[in-house]
Amino acid sequence: MSDRAPASETPQMRDIPIGIDATGHRTETDSMGEIAVARDRYWGAQTQRSLKHFSIGHDRMPIEVSRAFGLVKKATTLVHEREGRIPRWKTAAMLRAADEVIEGKLDEHFPLYVWQTGSGTQSNMNINEVISNRAIQLLGGEIGSKKPVHPNDDVNMGMSSNDSFPTAMHVATVKMLDERLFPELDALASTIERKAAEWSDVVKIGRTHLEDAVPLTVGQEWSGYAHQIRDAVRSLQQAREGLLELAIGGTAVGTGITAPPGFSVAVADEIARLTGQPYRTAPNKFAAQGSLDAMVRVSAALRNVAVAVMKIANDMRWLASGPRCGIGELTLPENEPGSSIMPGKVNPTQCEAIIMIAIQIIGEDNAVAFAGSQGNFELNAMRPIIINNVLHGIRILADGCEKFRTFSVEGTELNRRRIAEQVEQSVMLVTALSPVVGYDKAAAIAHDAMEHDLTLREAALKTGAITEEEFDRVVDARKMVGEGLAGA
Amino acid sequence: MSDRAPASETPQMRDIPIGIDATGHRTETDSMGEIAVARDRYWGAQTQRSLKHFSIGHDRMPIEVSRAFGLVKKATTLVHEREGRIPRWKTAAMLRAADEVIEGKLDEHFPLYVWQTGSGTQSNMNINEVISNRAIQLLGGEIGSKKPVHPNDDVNMGMSSNDSFPTAMHVATVKMLDERLFPELDALASTIERKAAEWSDVVKIGRTHLEDAVPLTVGQEWSGYAHQIRDAVRSLQQAREGLLELAIGGTAVGTGITAPPGFSVAVADEIARLTGQPYRTAPNKFAAQGSLDAMVRVSAALRNVAVAVMKIANDMRWLASGPRCGIGELTLPENEPGSSIMPGKVNPTQCEAIIMIAIQIIGEDNAVAFAGSQGNFELNAMRPIIINNVLHGIRILADGCEKFRTFSVEGTELNRRRIAEQVEQSVMLVTALSPVVGYDKAAAIAHDAMEHDLTLREAALKTGAITEEEFDRVVDARKMVGEGLAGA
Amino acid sequence: MSDRAPASETPQMRDIPIGIDATGHRTETDSMGEIAVARDRYWGAQTQRSLKHFSIGHDRMPIEVSRAFGLVKKATTLVHEREGRIPRWKTAAMLRAADEVIEGKLDEHFPLYVWQTGSGTQSNMNINEVISNRAIQLLGGEIGSKKPVHPNDDVNMGMSSNDSFPTAMHVATVKMLDERLFPELDALASTIERKAAEWSDVVKIGRTHLEDAVPLTVGQEWSGYAHQIRDAVRSLQQAREGLLELAIGGTAVGTGITAPPGFSVAVADEIARLTGQPYRTAPNKFAAQGSLDAMVRVSAALRNVAVAVMKIANDMRWLASGPRCGIGELTLPENEPGSSIMPGKVNPTQCEAIIMIAIQIIGEDNAVAFAGSQGNFELNAMRPIIINNVLHGIRILADGCEKFRTFSVEGTELNRRRIAEQVEQSVMLVTALSPVVGYDKAAAIAHDAMEHDLTLREAALKTGAITEEEFDRVVDARKMVGEGLAGA
Amino acid sequence: MSDRAPASETPQMRDIPIGIDATGHRTETDSMGEIAVARDRYWGAQTQRSLKHFSIGHDRMPIEVSRAFGLVKKATTLVHEREGRIPRWKTAAMLRAADEVIEGKLDEHFPLYVWQTGSGTQSNMNINEVISNRAIQLLGGEIGSKKPVHPNDDVNMGMSSNDSFPTAMHVATVKMLDERLFPELDALASTIERKAAEWSDVVKIGRTHLEDAVPLTVGQEWSGYAHQIRDAVRSLQQAREGLLELAIGGTAVGTGITAPPGFSVAVADEIARLTGQPYRTAPNKFAAQGSLDAMVRVSAALRNVAVAVMKIANDMRWLASGPRCGIGELTLPENEPGSSIMPGKVNPTQCEAIIMIAIQIIGEDNAVAFAGSQGNFELNAMRPIIINNVLHGIRILADGCEKFRTFSVEGTELNRRRIAEQVEQSVMLVTALSPVVGYDKAAAIAHDAMEHDLTLREAALKTGAITEEEFDRVVDARKMVGEGLAGA
Repeated sequence: MSDRAPASETPQMRDIPIGIDATGHRTETDSMGEIAVARDRYWGAQTQRSLKHFSIGHDRMPIEVSRAFGLVKKATTLVHEREGRIPRWKTAAMLRAADEVIEGKLDEHFPLYVWQTGSGTQSNMNINEVISNRAIQLLGGEIGSKKPVHPNDDVNMGMSSNDSFPTAMHVATVKMLDERLFPELDALASTIERKAAEWSDVVKIGRTHLEDAVPLTVGQEWSGYAHQIRDAVRSLQQAREGLLELAIGGTAVGTGITAPPGFSVAVADEIARLTGQPYRTAPNKFAAQGSLDAMVRVSAALRNVAVAVMKIANDMRWLASGPRCGIGELTLPENEPGSSIMPGKVNPTQCEAIIMIAIQIIGEDNAVAFAGSQGNFELNAMRPIIINNVLHGIRILADGCEKFRTFSVEGTELNRRRIAEQVEQSVMLVTALSPVVGYDKAAAIAHDAMEHDLTLREAALKTGAITEEEFDRVVDARKMVGEGLAGA
Repeated sequence: MSDRAPASETPQMRDIPIGIDATGHRTETDSMGEIAVARDRYWGAQTQRSLKHFSIGHDRMPIEVSRAFGLVKKATTLVHEREGRIPRWKTAAMLRAADEVIEGKLDEHFPLYVWQTGSGTQSNMNINEVISNRAIQLLGGEIGSKKPVHPNDDVNMGMSSNDSFPTAMHVATVKMLDERLFPELDALASTIERKAAEWSDVVKIGRTHLEDAVPLTVGQEWSGYAHQIRDAVRSLQQAREGLLELAIGGTAVGTGITAPPGFSVAVADEIARLTGQPYRTAPNKFAAQGSLDAMVRVSAALRNVAVAVMKIANDMRWLASGPRCGIGELTLPENEPGSSIMPGKVNPTQCEAIIMIAIQIIGEDNAVAFAGSQGNFELNAMRPIIINNVLHGIRILADGCEKFRTFSVEGTELNRRRIAEQVEQSVMLVTALSPVVGYDKAAAIAHDAMEHDLTLREAALKTGAITEEEFDRVVDARKMVGEGLAGA
Repeated sequence: MSDRAPASETPQMRDIPIGIDATGHRTETDSMGEIAVARDRYWGAQTQRSLKHFSIGHDRMPIEVSRAFGLVKKATTLVHEREGRIPRWKTAAMLRAADEVIEGKLDEHFPLYVWQTGSGTQSNMNINEVISNRAIQLLGGEIGSKKPVHPNDDVNMGMSSNDSFPTAMHVATVKMLDERLFPELDALASTIERKAAEWSDVVKIGRTHLEDAVPLTVGQEWSGYAHQIRDAVRSLQQAREGLLELAIGGTAVGTGITAPPGFSVAVADEIARLTGQPYRTAPNKFAAQGSLDAMVRVSAALRNVAVAVMKIANDMRWLASGPRCGIGELTLPENEPGSSIMPGKVNPTQCEAIIMIAIQIIGEDNAVAFAGSQGNFELNAMRPIIINNVLHGIRILADGCEKFRTFSVEGTELNRRRIAEQVEQSVMLVTALSPVVGYDKAAAIAHDAMEHDLTLREAALKTGAITEEEFDRVVDARKMVGEGLAGA
Repeated sequence: MSDRAPASETPQMRDIPIGIDATGHRTETDSMGEIAVARDRYWGAQTQRSLKHFSIGHDRMPIEVSRAFGLVKKATTLVHEREGRIPRWKTAAMLRAADEVIEGKLDEHFPLYVWQTGSGTQSNMNINEVISNRAIQLLGGEIGSKKPVHPNDDVNMGMSSNDSFPTAMHVATVKMLDERLFPELDALASTIERKAAEWSDVVKIGRTHLEDAVPLTVGQEWSGYAHQIRDAVRSLQQAREGLLELAIGGTAVGTGITAPPGFSVAVADEIARLTGQPYRTAPNKFAAQGSLDAMVRVSAALRNVAVAVMKIANDMRWLASGPRCGIGELTLPENEPGSSIMPGKVNPTQCEAIIMIAIQIIGEDNAVAFAGSQGNFELNAMRPIIINNVLHGIRILADGCEKFRTFSVEGTELNRRRIAEQVEQSVMLVTALSPVVGYDKAAAIAHDAMEHDLTLREAALKTGAITEEEFDRVVDARKMVGEGLAGA
């Protein structure tokens, strides 16, 4: 602890609003020496150095990581306070600052880029510095003085970036999954299920290999879409379980050096209490810090959702293709003009957007797997790329599903006339004849119909192999679709 | 059923050994017409056509698929037999043929290529034709006559490729996972755990960012490796669960057209009985046939294993690097000369092989995800590429882990002298001073030691901030590693 | 043309500064009807609709696309003006607006998201609307009235999004390559070449399979790095050539419908004139619009640069590993404290950042290839994802190379003492003995040295196969490195 | 040289046919000691060790690598012979053995697996051992004795695996590109161009976003396909150029240690002479051996071909979808029955096969890029995975294109009636009205036609904005397609 002030001089937290009313620069220091920081910023020397060395592209560390980090620091501070390792007058300010971080009130003080040190140390120090300086401000101290709240000795007490950053990764990811993605996937599946129920009686021609096949109902087809999503969600939930194991307490290399005994369990419990989620300490800290496997698994599961969603969106745009020279079974909502040159054109733009999102997630998951394989010894130094891609994927998939559902799925209608026409025209109902006349004869009938532009009925009766009555009894599209939405 | 022979003429199965003692060609037919097939082959017209149209590269449909298909046909035949849809004199021959397929005795009669129709229809017909012709042979019929056992009407009765091929994919994959991969992963993890226990007391320098860090034990480091594998296996087992849901019974588009009522449940039960695995009918056939999501999830989980294994193999080769100009902590077994030009060179070849395998699996999983997204309507016509990559990945990972374990992990030894020297030399033990003298002063000590080539002890005492006694008490590598293999 | 005003009423452009001093909303219209737009925005109905339907994540269409689009519109307007298709009083305002777009002065009026319609129509309309409204403002008209400058009939005259968007993609990409990436790659290669020259005489131990091998000079090693970059740049320049072919003039499907004769050639020439780059009309418009192959090739070439850069950065961090328990040949600049817990730790953070950038580019290139394959018929509707990933890759690689060079490569120093020690210790100099005593005997000497901890000299002389004089003459590291930087 | 026999005893090569008429095992030796090898095999100890340690999966080192290696050894032997470093009586046998390797006569003696040492050393030794033993046999020596032709000292003289293996990779890849892939791509493009010319006058409806758009000719559409391939081929040829630079002569680490002066240039010249291709020595051996960038670039270019081909095959199967409930413009050849259950079904199986091939190549290229990034110091030890994937991709793409062309493209026919009907039905011809009545009015006409199921003509005339004569003059699909195949 850097604070060795006698109790008689104990500073007390005051209710100072967020904001530093100052211009120009102050001097902040770290183990490399001095560096100038804008006076109205809460961050310190290490954040400033990172800004200088890593202003690469426009990709910033996702703000969700910083907020989750606030929660991690809150939990550790509470544990330290409880054990008497940091006095209450100090933790009061630290906790208030941490809460402000959690609530997003200090978002603008987390400016760091994704492409930085692979351990996320600079983002950890960003948090440490912001909480330190904000707490110093609340306690009436001099911002940048590190007194009475030191970014390393107090805010980072008993921690390393190596255990706290992956902990923040897990907490941020679980939160985004729970608050954004799972609800959107559920809403999408529910909407599709509602459509499936609504259209459970509409018989349509099935298609395999893009070719006309035997009939099913529109409801059955859509029930398959919903089922794909439900299955993918289940798998994503299983992957999420792995995120509940936290590295915190492992400190630098997993052994827990500098952390007090029991710290890992206590902090995990505290995070569980604060979030209401069953977080627990990772059973093996060397795996938890040397790898990012739990994150890689979530990324894979996210990708698997993307694979499912892509199939659905692809089907929708093809089924809506036309309006006159395509399949034309579906009518998607017209949200905007489709063409700057072709008047009246309406395009399946929501489908295209979600398909691009799916492809992006598949590509970024590829980066995550690659990065996940590149750990060395006691650290996988590919954390920023992994958390950035995973949170990015969750964000665009959740938003994309919301738009896709709201502006495309919900308003999709059937072109029932066209659907009925296609059922009538298809020759693949011949399949129903197969058990009656045998596969080979049925095939000959189908070929004959195609070649001579006959209806299936005409071609079948021509052979004499079946009577009119039998044909009409057997070749009834409505009977070919079985019962219920789930299929055979 | 093609067989309308009166009972009085019922053929009886005879015990004819496998093999057709004939030369030249016979004529086989399908709905496209006639085609010549070598007389000593059991396959028929459609297999022959596929051979002609799809002789692409050297990639053959994995034989495990054909064998699993044998099991599927056995199960369907048993169900048909039980329900009286195919007479026993006929099923007897069909079942014997199916058993021969399952046992691999007819392997050479499954010559088809991976790059064929996307539904796997040609491989399904290959099975149908082989079982048909072999059963005809057993019943004394004329091979190629389709009598009395028709490839479509009998062997494929109540089935489509669209439901039976993915069923065979699932059965083949589960079998290879259970028989090859899970045992090898368990053996690898167990071997690593044994090593971890053996080396639980050897203190070594930790490394983060490739840079010297605080110490841990070799046992701790290796416990992390084992834990990574155990976690990855658990996830792969969860993915395997999805394979227990079978499409069979959905027939052409999921509705079960041409299949008898209850067929899907009955066949899944039969497959469960035959394999001893809890197979069940897929709860939604449109999802099961329109997507290959369950396979995509297995592929992802396999990739996640690869990611974990790659980290371990990479660590091993780096820790063994040198022998004199690298890290040199480990000594890997010398299995072969390492260089055609540098005498005496020994290389971490097993590590390299398993790393390449991991990369291959990551790349092939990428193809699987892509293919998995390309389903349309009632069929994902990307089945051959998906089953081929998944089984390939399982095979090379299982074999690779076996070799890696046998020829590298088991024989790995420690270079204890070097490990001890490195602990002594490192300045990162300074971390233990941090709680005593504060982070900033500790950092200054470390820098001083590096700059002036001092030991940490010399640099620390120089500052006067700590006494000799305190230093020796605090900076004790053995105390820094905590207790047990799992870390904090 | 929407403007049918008689010449006598011709409006004249006035010098009105950018900005709309108004609050509240105005009504904009398009073929879907009316929509409210904030009064201080230049965009119109279609942009507003897109904002509503596609607010997905934080990914905005790269501003470079909008600026390049400004240049495309400038070129088309100039061609129309020259041909008398739009009167000069109108083009004057349109050109001024276009210039403002090009110069980035209207950046804030291009708010659209990446995840939108796959053709980029909405971003094209965004440009059309902004230029229209800004030109209307300059001409004293009513913003939102589409008079006298109509977004479709005037600004988009003779164009479709289908040809103009890919044209803007090409122009934006070439510009970013030329202005950002090529200079940075050249600077990086030059810096490395300077280092190589500086260290051309420093003999070091080579390493293959991570294992000690025969010596080379540090300069030789670094010459290889530079050569890799130079080769990769050459390939990227070849890929850039494909971007010089422009789709503009193909309009909706490549046939040039609604475009005046000769428009494609004239606009390409104009763009060439404006940029000073040899742009030309794409020789086949159906390929140019139905595919994005030229962009896919640039993405691949960019990825290949990433592959090369990753190897270099990896080598640097491993060669700098330690400082005491790794290879330790290099000393990288200390830019920031390396650890929040381990005082004095310095990490290869620039290497880590550029490695993550390389992995990101490889992953995003995977998405580009996937998207590139998903064209259908006359359009590849995956444009936003492709341009976003390619420009993102260029940006982070350019910025990353700049930081990597400035903060890591330039300040890298040699640890000459350690380098010399390692050369002395290595036994792989035995290779030089091979031509003298034969491979097998040389191998035995090497093994003996390792096993009994001898120097190579001791082990060699022990065999009696070589005299001291011969040994010293033959086993001279300095002689083993050949001459010059390029190797054999 | 191991052979120190006086000239008087010079052995002479005899004309002994390939084959070792022996059973049981002989003892072979290497620097690790003795090992038993089947007597009828030409390989030696190191090959045998590799078989034992690396029997992983079914993936064998592509035989093309071994044959190319034969050529490399022939070239080096010729150079040594010319310089008098190996006597002619010995080179005579070595060259004969090398020729037999080149001609594929010794294929069965190259049994090694892909997953082996990352340098390919074991495959290099396989060549060395086979040439050694075969030459020994030809010279009347004892197989396995290494006399008078030693695998290392003679066959590998002046070489390392580190320079010779990548040389063989380049030679094998160029050969497969030139002999298999380029001819097939050219044939495919030519066939498509022939179709394009044949169908240059058939007006069809264009499609963008899968939606009906303005017309073009079938010939124009297909000209785009051919152009895509031609462009992709050009890029692949550029990548091939990089393969003409050979590492040979760099030996162990690029310095050329143990190689005679001038060896690199001389061998490259010799390989150029033997192959008729302008091979040359790599200008920087450290890049050539430390990276596999030239191979990575070829893989990327191959992938880019795959991306183009996939688009074409996808278009074809969609345009052929139906026959009655899809687009139905094309009729693909019926090569085989399409369904085991739906009689008469014909599927676009060649399209599916080539699409799967394209996806496989994209996935494997991803593995190549990953592996290409994993070089360390003087060696990229990921060679086997890279050469295997690249040659695999070339092989399946070449074969796939051949089948796709022969069995699908060549026999594709137009359904002219349907094409004409669709042109008539489409409302997107409205685009031609846009320059006449303005975009907004044209859009209203289109919407009206769709809503009230009118023809475009009916809806347009209803507005009174255009006369019948003007409509018929302007809205003429034939006039909308411009002239020629290349588009605007």
